[in-house]
Amino acid sequence: MANIHDVSKAAGVSVSTVSRVLNNHPYVKKEKVEAVKKAIIETGYIPNINAVNLKKGKTHLIGIVLPFLDVPYFSQLVQGISQAASVHQYKLVLYQTGYDEHQEKEALEMLKLKQIDSLIICSRKISLETVEHYQQYGSIVLFENGEDTPLSYTFIDHYACFMRALEYLYEHGHRKIGFSVNRLEGANSSQRERAYRDFLKLKGLPFHKDYIFKKCLNIEDGERILREIAAFQERPTAILATSDQVAAGIITSSSNYELKVPRDLAVIGFDDQPIARAMQITSVNIPLYSIGQILFEQAIAVEISHKEVSTELMERSTV
Amino acid sequence: MANIHDVSKAAGVSVSTVSRVLNNHPYVKKEKVEAVKKAIIETGYIPNINAVNLKKGKTHLIGIVLPFLDVPYFSQLVQGISQAASVHQYKLVLYQTGYDEHQEKEALEMLKLKQIDSLIICSRKISLETVEHYQQYGSIVLFENGEDTPLSYTFIDHYACFMRALEYLYEHGHRKIGFSVNRLEGANSSQRERAYRDFLKLKGLPFHKDYIFKKCLNIEDGERILREIAAFQERPTAILATSDQVAAGIITSSSNYELKVPRDLAVIGFDDQPIARAMQITSVNIPLYSIGQILFEQAIAVEISHKEVSTELMERSTV
Repeated sequence: MANIHDVSKAAGVSVSTVSRVLNNHPYVKKEKVEAVKKAIIETGYIPNINAVNLKKGKTHLIGIVLPFLDVPYFSQLVQGISQAASVHQYKLVLYQTGYDEHQEKEALEMLKLKQIDSLIICSRKISLETVEHYQQYGSIVLFENGEDTPLSYTFIDHYACFMRALEYLYEHGHRKIGFSVNRLEGANSSQRERAYRDFLKLKGLPFHKDYIFKKCLNIEDGERILREIAAFQERPTAILATSDQVAAGIITSSSNYELKVPRDLAVIGFDDQPIARAMQITSVNIPLYSIGQILFEQAIAVEISHKEVSTELMERSTV
Repeated sequence: MANIHDVSKAAGVSVSTVSRVLNNHPYVKKEKVEAVKKAIIETGYIPNINAVNLKKGKTHLIGIVLPFLDVPYFSQLVQGISQAASVHQYKLVLYQTGYDEHQEKEALEMLKLKQIDSLIICSRKISLETVEHYQQYGSIVLFENGEDTPLSYTFIDHYACFMRALEYLYEHGHRKIGFSVNRLEGANSSQRERAYRDFLKLKGLPFHKDYIFKKCLNIEDGERILREIAAFQERPTAILATSDQVAAGIITSSSNYELKVPRDLAVIGFDDQPIARAMQITSVNIPLYSIGQILFEQAIAVEISHKEVSTELMERSTV
């Protein structure tokens, strides 16, 4: 494919003259402009956007760090980011990491190397110290409470909304409550665990470590929870599930164990996905599309900002 | 931020010498190499990947054209592409189009301008003629039967697998069968409609245009189908749903209309998502992760290739 040198040769002018013509520079002789334009058509030369980006110092690409795409929580978040990006003529580069720190680091390196203008970190394993180090190279936005960082962030008060859901179960007579998380070491999960322990202390209830179900993300994990519970001597009477998918898995497999929801087991989901509305699952609404839009706005803004987004308990028929 | 000119000044050498050192070019005097390395550290110069890409003529970015991300069908497909991309050190640029032709065209333009090395079109509205025109600028891969194009593609025989599902319902005694699609003008949907009409002709069954439910994609759309059916004088006894989400919506809302699945209404979903397994929905398995991986391999391959992927009817409890 023809490059700028081919145009230069064909036009019989220097490469810098071609460049001036391409960039509509003044003070180029009319006959040279004509020669360059003719040579562009003759050679079939197409400008390379990497040259344009190099010149402007901008790519109009925003990076997204997220572990996986095939869970509704993340796909809705990215859909929200993507819709806002589309309005502002930006495109998204996906850094799908599977919580691999090496891959998360690579996304940060790409911010340094200007593959992208900004980076939105939807969920991470890498330390905040490492993330902060890269702020000098471009805007970085977190979807978590980053109050000890100099970064922009949007967050949900997971402690408060978990506490609210536990209180709701308590009001409905539940004293043996279990909960599920994906990664216990994750920023959100650790807040949930803290709320759970504080709640038990507050109510004078015993702690059962078996009542915490880890690595739960999908429908299959909900089925696994029910399989485990069925073998317990002392079963929980209620479960706060990681997500509506996990809640759905619990509910659909409950009949296999002759457990009736909510009579024998109450269930609360998280996110308020369409599946929660369809299956009438009591759930905590998290407005992921709006959060995606806010994250995008923060990513292109010049100033650092912090936003808290509120959640809502949707009372349905599983408690 | 320091650029190559700053390094050149600080080192007291020409810009092209700096460039030669950066690219490990031989035949640069040792003292000049040392001076450039010292100047890079002093100035804090960071190479811009757009310059590297410009030089190499490669970006290691693959574009993905898809209408939305927040339906499992597409998010699983992208997850499959993304996993294969990760193995080959490629990243994905999302062109989320909402079936807007203007946005689809923009993705093709970005192939021309070298923002990306290749483009995978998961679903489109734009004409194949327009798509083909851009093949000269980079590899384009379709997820559809592109047999009349010079492009690489992977496809499912939607006609055959729809026919198979209809036959299965017929074997189970159904004579009044409806089906749902998202866009009737879509490449896959038109194959389904053709299979449906051929099937009716083959079996000597009457055509009811009310039995085709359009714009169905999500759980809510399944609920809408049931609302419509409930008002019919002559109801279908079976529905072939667009996706498992639509099937789930039909099933969860069936009790509102005192219809029992499968006794009063049989349902077959598509894709075999986790929700189908959890809710025991009879479904047509489409291996979206594997298809994503194949699409990626085709996108980076030098040669044009065509792959057909087979589907499987998963017999469960909704027929």
